[in-house]
Amino acid sequence: MKAAPHFSDKTANSNSLRLAIAGLGTVGCGVIKLLQEQASSLTDRTGKQLVVTAVSARDRTKDRQIDLSSFRWYDNPVELASDETIDCVLELIGGAEGPARDLVEASLKAGKAVITANKALIALHGKELAQLSKTHNAPLYYEASVAGAIPAVKIVREGLAGDIIKTIGGILNGTCNYILTTMEETGQSFEAVLKEAQEKGFAEAEPSTDIDGWDTAHKLAILANIAFKPLQFDSLTVEGIRSITASDLGFARKLGYKVKLLGMARQHQDGSIEAWVRPCLVPEKAKLAQVDNVFNALTWEGNYSGPMTISGRGAGEGPTASAVLADIIDYAQGMRLPLWGRIVEQEETAARSVASLKSAFYVRLLVDDTPGVMADISAVLRDQGISVHLIAQHEFKLEQVYLTVITHPVANSHITDAAARLRELNSVHGAPLIVTIESLC
Amino acid sequence: MKAAPHFSDKTANSNSLRLAIAGLGTVGCGVIKLLQEQASSLTDRTGKQLVVTAVSARDRTKDRQIDLSSFRWYDNPVELASDETIDCVLELIGGAEGPARDLVEASLKAGKAVITANKALIALHGKELAQLSKTHNAPLYYEASVAGAIPAVKIVREGLAGDIIKTIGGILNGTCNYILTTMEETGQSFEAVLKEAQEKGFAEAEPSTDIDGWDTAHKLAILANIAFKPLQFDSLTVEGIRSITASDLGFARKLGYKVKLLGMARQHQDGSIEAWVRPCLVPEKAKLAQVDNVFNALTWEGNYSGPMTISGRGAGEGPTASAVLADIIDYAQGMRLPLWGRIVEQEETAARSVASLKSAFYVRLLVDDTPGVMADISAVLRDQGISVHLIAQHEFKLEQVYLTVITHPVANSHITDAAARLRELNSVHGAPLIVTIESLC
Repeated sequence: MKAAPHFSDKTANSNSLRLAIAGLGTVGCGVIKLLQEQASSLTDRTGKQLVVTAVSARDRTKDRQIDLSSFRWYDNPVELASDETIDCVLELIGGAEGPARDLVEASLKAGKAVITANKALIALHGKELAQLSKTHNAPLYYEASVAGAIPAVKIVREGLAGDIIKTIGGILNGTCNYILTTMEETGQSFEAVLKEAQEKGFAEAEPSTDIDGWDTAHKLAILANIAFKPLQFDSLTVEGIRSITASDLGFARKLGYKVKLLGMARQHQDGSIEAWVRPCLVPEKAKLAQVDNVFNALTWEGNYSGPMTISGRGAGEGPTASAVLADIIDYAQGMRLPLWGRIVEQEETAARSVASLKSAFYVRLLVDDTPGVMADISAVLRDQGISVHLIAQHEFKLEQVYLTVITHPVANSHITDAAARLRELNSVHGAPLIVTIESLC
Repeated sequence: MKAAPHFSDKTANSNSLRLAIAGLGTVGCGVIKLLQEQASSLTDRTGKQLVVTAVSARDRTKDRQIDLSSFRWYDNPVELASDETIDCVLELIGGAEGPARDLVEASLKAGKAVITANKALIALHGKELAQLSKTHNAPLYYEASVAGAIPAVKIVREGLAGDIIKTIGGILNGTCNYILTTMEETGQSFEAVLKEAQEKGFAEAEPSTDIDGWDTAHKLAILANIAFKPLQFDSLTVEGIRSITASDLGFARKLGYKVKLLGMARQHQDGSIEAWVRPCLVPEKAKLAQVDNVFNALTWEGNYSGPMTISGRGAGEGPTASAVLADIIDYAQGMRLPLWGRIVEQEETAARSVASLKSAFYVRLLVDDTPGVMADISAVLRDQGISVHLIAQHEFKLEQVYLTVITHPVANSHITDAAARLRELNSVHGAPLIVTIESLC
């Protein structure tokens, strides 16, 4: 049995692994249920008994439909870190700061293994956590933090480890994908569908983390850190789906596209990394275009392995709990990897600005329905060096129409400059909407 | 660092891992190239130097476009097993018997780690190899044996380890998928497309392993052994694509289906496992229906994780070499798992017979174009208790037409009995073609 150089193991000779669970929401309770249901199968796999010995949550009295009486209860989750009878702490509280961060840091410092589903924590504090993990010989697992049931971290950190990844990303937020799918299918407004999603429990009461792209950005940053090198999180360009209308979804469909909130990262020839989250037009034949509702999908291309796409459930009790279980099993089977998969770490770098990135664009404008408008708009685009693939007019109301433009590939900065110029035209109402056309791998 | 109980490690303290490669075809040469190109990245990942020290192939003089002068040459691959300076043997010869099997067995007996891309070997001799691996503390890796670049073994053995898998399978043979796709797109016959595929190098000169379903069966057996429990390989039902005509592909398309060679395995409530390879009609909206040409895809459904599908390149130098590299890295990082992922092994069992499995079926018959034929056929189906969803007639030639029938779900044995009865009718020419309709997960 080989040791990865920077981990030692205190539990190698024990036949029982003692787990503590902090956070008893749907995922935490799902993990307890799954551990109980699968107990004998897990022992068959690992040769060990996996036993929950302690739990922590805010409210001890809440009815969670599971019997907690055999677990030690902690009101303060951080105290789990100093309980000598615990081998591995499962942090299922959430949030990049506060008790989640305190618990993970304290547990690693105490030399305990940590398993977390906390994407914000890993994306924002990965650098410090990688260092703590290394210094204290304490492995940190985070499969459940990216794309729910899809074994995204394992695929990228292990399955693709022998290849040179060129591009990676995908549909990483089920709430946004559900909203976009429903808007397209029903023609309802963003606001109406969001409200419905909140009522159904598919969206949070405070939806900004999801719909403004931050949740996707956390997951994308984690994937890019593994696939390429550690990125400064605040260097990512992040844009959500609030500006997309049901009309845009209809126009895009007529043009052969679907609209998806994508997080994508690419390594360029000069070693720089692009990494951004934004709504994109995706060709309707693309694999990602066929991933709808709450489903997530990850796509990538390797120099040797070629293109691959995986789709599955990105959230929810069962999918997330099964990812946490996979981490528990990896831990029990002796898998010990550095946080980003490399023993020799690289410095954090900034993602390159999107301004210089070239792609085709979809531009949607509300304009007066008068002669000469198309000529004015075409002139602005020409003056910015933007070559037009297609302009289409769509009825709106008596004296105004929507214009949609598909450009040939052009630098992002040119299209934003052009949008500013277009906005100044008297015949153009409001800000033009600019959406990247992403041809994927 | 935890040791999985039944492996010890001789190389834990070495900073260099010495690899031997047996078989210098496209994959073997691809692995050498990738190891050289990625040398510094691999050392960053693993903290170790991964060095090829010895090679073996049939013909030493063949020009392989790579410099072999720094490697020790062995005419007899089995001698690699007794070379004390080798830590890990890569078996890339192929074949379930002969030198490949001899080398893998001898290497395991010598306590060496083994990495193989040999699906036939693992599928047919997995039981013995698992035992040798355990007895001699010698890990055996086989990621490249299933679905090329797709990290199928890793996903199932590790990523889904915490879940209860209900169904797993997919499109596991690129040659068959290429042939079916091309037949559908061009309307050419099976024979013509096979010949063209052979000329392009997409099919072997002796194509039976691919087109009669055996290659798919090897991969399916491996997946089922990991996902459920070890199966007796000869209990699988295996049928290839020779009987599918371009007309069938056209008829299926009109009915909203595509034809794919699938290998699928399912666990039933009573614990029995169905596992079969056969051409199937797949709904055109299904994810697998959109996987064409040489691409492979794997789909599964877990009790907790839900449905997932992954597609990618299933063969070729780059995809297969990248999978071998992932195994080398797992080995270097200290990953040691039992062959099927369970320390407590289960007995080999037989897959259940397909006779009792229920599904809808596609039946295609060549019949006389005379009054009463449809009534005769309907009567036979009725007498066998087969409920018909749809019968369609397709022009063929002056006095004969094709009939296609889509049934409601019925046991396989009923449909084969009905086919035998139909064949006896004077108005039916030749054997009816029976194809399962697979609604997937």
